Amino acid sequence: MLHLKSETGQRWLNQVEKHTDTILIDHAHCEKKAAGTALNLMFAYIENEDLCREMTSIVNEELEHFQMVRDILNERDIEFRRLKPSSYGGKLHELIRSGESQKAVDRLLVAGLIEARSCERFGQLRKHLPDAQLRDFYDSLFESEARHHAVYVRLAKHYAPEREVMSRLDELATAEAAIITQGDELPRMHS
Amino acid sequence: MLHLKSETGQRWLNQVEKHTDTILIDHAHCEKKAAGTALNLMFAYIENEDLCREMTSIVNEELEHFQMVRDILNERDIEFRRLKPSSYGGKLHELIRSGESQKAVDRLLVAGLIEARSCERFGQLRKHLPDAQLRDFYDSLFESEARHHAVYVRLAKHYAPEREVMSRLDELATAEAAIITQGDELPRMHS
Repeated sequence: MLHLKSETGQRWLNQVEKHTDTILIDHAHCEKKAAGTALNLMFAYIENEDLCREMTSIVNEELEHFQMVRDILNERDIEFRRLKPSSYGGKLHELIRSGESQKAVDRLLVAGLIEARSCERFGQLRKHLPDAQLRDFYDSLFESEARHHAVYVRLAKHYAPEREVMSRLDELATAEAAIITQGDELPRMHS
Repeated sequence: MLHLKSETGQRWLNQVEKHTDTILIDHAHCEKKAAGTALNLMFAYIENEDLCREMTSIVNEELEHFQMVRDILNERDIEFRRLKPSSYGGKLHELIRSGESQKAVDRLLVAGLIEARSCERFGQLRKHLPDAQLRDFYDSLFESEARHHAVYVRLAKHYAPEREVMSRLDELATAEAAIITQGDELPRMHS
């Protein structure tokens, strides 16, 4: 369903265990960036009404999630601060081909893979976190990330035939799995 | 209440009369840009929780309005298309001082003045448009633009003492009135 080519392993769970607070702060930033990505896609493909409606929903949901993470940080007296992002997003964006309409396909699929990985990691967190409130929180977000993934893949099919989209998704998912296996020393949601 | 230094006159109403469809299309773009401005302000001042909450609301409302205008365009078989923007926004943005925290004050006040002018023009439209559906539509949006204006002015006071903010608002409103009096040959929401 998520089209991912790898499952998160113990290396990341060890980072989470040692740096849960930092991962929470990074999570807030990720929600903000996801809202920005959706709004940028809307700006770029403003003629596409289906896309505009879906991006409107996604922007609203991501900003709501951002506020939810901020509330959790406040409850726990964790100071929200700027963080150097992990290399994950930048590496994925390098894979986006130039020239339309393949650029549209890639932008949508990359956004969809980021949602898929977030979903998979929220699945790990709802299973493995020792803190019951956080387990419940990640359980509550799991479904929306899966849904966003499906929306992005569906929208990519506006810009290329289904067979091409699925074959490109396969390629990008392979690259995504390699990036995630490589990891990042910084403890982040996508490290 | 809106801190504007001029009232829209007959010149703009003549543009509206001749180019109502184009003004409607431009209105959709304005709502989209207003959402982008709010999200950019949130990104720039992400530590400010009050600002983040208000920007979240404004982004949601502007995108909802964008969809409402798109629905009206569809009902009327008016094709939504890209438009060269009027010179209004660009001229206002040139007035933003560099260096914090005066940049924050100016960005917020310029955003607030654009909301104020939209509000004032929606007030003209709800009074003067011959089309009852459109009059009602602009009446329904009037209050939210006024509220957004007040939110931006209030948030500017996070970044400078009230007296400085109000004095700068006075300066910027004078410049805004000059820009709007100068107008634009292109028929637009802020021409």
